Amino acid sequence: MKENGIFITFEGPDGAGKTTIINLIAKELNDVLLTREPGGIEIAEQIRRVILDKENTAMDSRTEALLYAAARRQHLIEKVKPALEEGKIVLCDRFVDSSLAYQGYARGLGMDEVYAINEFAIEDLMPDLTIYFDIEPELGITRISKNKGREVNRLDLENLDFHRKVREGYQLLMERFPDRIVRIDASGTVDEVFENTLNVMRGRIANIRPLS
Amino acid sequence: MKENGIFITFEGPDGAGKTTIINLIAKELNDVLLTREPGGIEIAEQIRRVILDKENTAMDSRTEALLYAAARRQHLIEKVKPALEEGKIVLCDRFVDSSLAYQGYARGLGMDEVYAINEFAIEDLMPDLTIYFDIEPELGITRISKNKGREVNRLDLENLDFHRKVREGYQLLMERFPDRIVRIDASGTVDEVFENTLNVMRGRIANIRPLS
Repeated sequence: MKENGIFITFEGPDGAGKTTIINLIAKELNDVLLTREPGGIEIAEQIRRVILDKENTAMDSRTEALLYAAARRQHLIEKVKPALEEGKIVLCDRFVDSSLAYQGYARGLGMDEVYAINEFAIEDLMPDLTIYFDIEPELGITRISKNKGREVNRLDLENLDFHRKVREGYQLLMERFPDRIVRIDASGTVDEVFENTLNVMRGRIANIRPLS
Repeated sequence: MKENGIFITFEGPDGAGKTTIINLIAKELNDVLLTREPGGIEIAEQIRRVILDKENTAMDSRTEALLYAAARRQHLIEKVKPALEEGKIVLCDRFVDSSLAYQGYARGLGMDEVYAINEFAIEDLMPDLTIYFDIEPELGITRISKNKGREVNRLDLENLDFHRKVREGYQLLMERFPDRIVRIDASGTVDEVFENTLNVMRGRIANIRPLS
């Protein structure tokens, strides 16, 4: 089903520098599709609007998880799969592991339960490689505050426990999928993280195009 | 979780007289909630609009199944569960078995796969009793045509194979959930089917209110 394409997903908390690095990586590659859900896919965008509608305060967390899985499915079928069939390298900013770490583990829905509905959504289109940008929650929060041009506030610190749980969730995922998920230390400079990421990609994906 | 309520679902093809019978049943009962998905629940209605939007021709069948499960979850949490907790008898016109018979079996997504996402949606809120109105597909189609005031047409006959598959799906479900699902022969008159349904409900639900 994947033909000659390579499917790489990027995971980690906000503040790990994920998006910055992915953009740099994409510039190094030919025949690349850089995407993130819902990715401009009309049906997936409609589903995301239902999730994000601030009027929908009554939304149950399981309803939300099912909607994320539905939007994921449609984005995968309409955008990711056709690109893989054309032989492209698909870089996707967040994918199934985000649902497992955030909703399954940190929000307490259960990783196995959230995996079951995502397995239904993804079928055999699991990533060939997942890069996990790991960072101490304290450092991630400091970076986010700096980006926003403000001090770390009380809400940030309250969120610290949640971010610690998310990190635990990712650690459990690495134990569960040791062949697929590779950890990158995201505490260094952009250049360092970028180089390490490229090295991992070179080492793990045999038929990747030569990188500059 | 269910407190003192009783949760009864009604299944079967269009043309089996399902809705007519449920309405008659509801009139016989006190403290009853008669509902069907999405049942006026705003979030579930929004999800159904995405499913039914005629512009959404690109919708994948797995996306659709996840959206049905999401709407089901929200309807269950906002409408069915509170009524059960108040001790009501909840009568629901179509529920999880419809997804299993139509999408899982007749459309070929796989009953186990569709069950997995519905299990996530429903948790422990499975029906106490499911009444399945069984009818020969030919007779069901004849009834639908009569209701619409027209002859059976070519499209109806083409749909016959599909309706036969749906019926096979329901038969598999009866084998799988013999304690929960009770078959009612829906080929008789409205009075006959109504009486048989009442008898089954009396026999199966010990603490149901006395029926007239």
